[in-house]
Amino acid sequence: MTRLTEDQLISRFFAPLATLAGARGLTDDAAVLSVPAGRHLVVTADMLVAGVHFLADDAADLVARKSLRVNLSDLAAKGARPHAFTLSLALPAGWTDEWLALFAEGLARDAAAFSFSLLGGDTVRTPGPLTIAVTAFGLVPAADIPRRDGARAGDAVYVSGTIGDGALGLLTRTGRDAFADRLGPEDRAFLTGRYLLPEPRVALAPALLAHASATMDVSDGFVGDLAKLLRASGVSATIDLSQVPLSAAARRAVAGDAACFETALTGGDDYEILCTVPPSGEEAFVGAAKAARIDVTRVGVVTEEAGPPRFIAPGGADTRFARGSFSHF
Amino acid sequence: MTRLTEDQLISRFFAPLATLAGARGLTDDAAVLSVPAGRHLVVTADMLVAGVHFLADDAADLVARKSLRVNLSDLAAKGARPHAFTLSLALPAGWTDEWLALFAEGLARDAAAFSFSLLGGDTVRTPGPLTIAVTAFGLVPAADIPRRDGARAGDAVYVSGTIGDGALGLLTRTGRDAFADRLGPEDRAFLTGRYLLPEPRVALAPALLAHASATMDVSDGFVGDLAKLLRASGVSATIDLSQVPLSAAARRAVAGDAACFETALTGGDDYEILCTVPPSGEEAFVGAAKAARIDVTRVGVVTEEAGPPRFIAPGGADTRFARGSFSHF
Repeated sequence: MTRLTEDQLISRFFAPLATLAGARGLTDDAAVLSVPAGRHLVVTADMLVAGVHFLADDAADLVARKSLRVNLSDLAAKGARPHAFTLSLALPAGWTDEWLALFAEGLARDAAAFSFSLLGGDTVRTPGPLTIAVTAFGLVPAADIPRRDGARAGDAVYVSGTIGDGALGLLTRTGRDAFADRLGPEDRAFLTGRYLLPEPRVALAPALLAHASATMDVSDGFVGDLAKLLRASGVSATIDLSQVPLSAAARRAVAGDAACFETALTGGDDYEILCTVPPSGEEAFVGAAKAARIDVTRVGVVTEEAGPPRFIAPGGADTRFARGSFSHF
Repeated sequence: MTRLTEDQLISRFFAPLATLAGARGLTDDAAVLSVPAGRHLVVTADMLVAGVHFLADDAADLVARKSLRVNLSDLAAKGARPHAFTLSLALPAGWTDEWLALFAEGLARDAAAFSFSLLGGDTVRTPGPLTIAVTAFGLVPAADIPRRDGARAGDAVYVSGTIGDGALGLLTRTGRDAFADRLGPEDRAFLTGRYLLPEPRVALAPALLAHASATMDVSDGFVGDLAKLLRASGVSATIDLSQVPLSAAARRAVAGDAACFETALTGGDDYEILCTVPPSGEEAFVGAAKAARIDVTRVGVVTEEAGPPRFIAPGGADTRFARGSFSHF
């Protein structure tokens, strides 16, 4: 097995992604990150571990792209335009140049697609699983970006895209899809694809900056993440579950199957935007989202008393969820 | 075993370290990093894996401090003042609140000592070893910070502190110290301490900014890192090995033991500064280092022809090293 040295793999695979002058082509020990006048940096960090955040046999290019996209989703939720990132990579025994070439290909593809420039990082070996740490930098015009704790009674609750595809896609990908007999091969491919390659709602950032009172991305499950946003804001909400947007594939999967519906709402890996919008801004927000070609759906309204959200089932009954969201511990 | 949730461990252990307003007390999904007018950010990232960069049974507070210090060393080498960092932490099965409390205590101690503010991060579980990814931000007054590739023929080669203690300390720490019979218990404690807790030369940063033509930190071994700096600069150097600064403990360890001397020069974990200084700036550089109370030692001179450095042994003979530096792969 041929194996590149650390310097070789940096110059071959990673240096081409370092398009900012301050990155010095990754030939130095650190980069200079100059922030344009009148702009502020938004910083977020996500770590992904094989066997926890993705499967060890997921394609290397998709793993790379997912590691960027989960960070891009956080930037989008805070109204930021993608700018640059650092990548620290712990490679397990048995990595090959071919694996890394495919990883770098995926990384390059999304770095280009999202104008997201590699600034630096580290490559080390690990006796454990592949581990990827990304710190992401976005740019915003002002320091008062949308908060998690800004929801106020009377605000409308919106989500982008569709909820539950990622969680159902993971079950499909791992053969634990009790709902498989209700799906065709296209449905299964769609759901698996949504798990493997989330779609960060980068284009929604300006609409969030302009109109949202509170924002976060939905990564650990709609129900649990909504509860976090409301708790931070000291409010509650009434959510009409019949309005929660589901893809056609997810609708077929959850049809008449309450447990499956619960998985969709609590399972995580959505990487959609959850936000609240004051009534005065709703029309403009919906218009801006439409102009950005991102579906947003009004799913409920913020209510005054602090407490867990009230979920109204499609039949009109209150619903509780045993498990709010994905938790590591 | 009690076990805190992710939110609890963030609020209890990490939020107190988030002293910048833009970090929002780690209650949001991202932080805002405002860069003071006239300042530029220097960004570096290092990843540490248990069993690779530290021993799994090293004390948690020292592991935390080392994870900051290896990054602070990179910032110092580039002339930057510490500002903020993100911390992504993959915790293995079996971590305890007590372990994490000690880790956070170490982190808090060095964050305070170096005015280094926690900006955000991620905490996940791993089936593998403890893995720590830090992305560090420093501030510099101008974007043209010292480079790795700026050494020119005639420049003097300097190193800070002493070389080899970390490599010898690792051998001592792991009972592979064939030189043990030449050392007393204080020597062993000193060398082990240098391995466990490197001293980043933060105070040397202004002197480097003002006077150095090329800089890097010595983390993978003096011999190999010097070769990297010279290769990047397209030059060579003649190094007088009798001038390479050794601590008293290291001097006793290497006495009459060529293999041990080679380990000291090539073994890594020094976290000292290696730099070149044009003759016109030497006096001012040495003066500035002295004012900063950091020892710097002139070990050689840069020469014109590109190529590996020439090492002159204490007896006057040319010396070659089989293994230049630590390499992951």
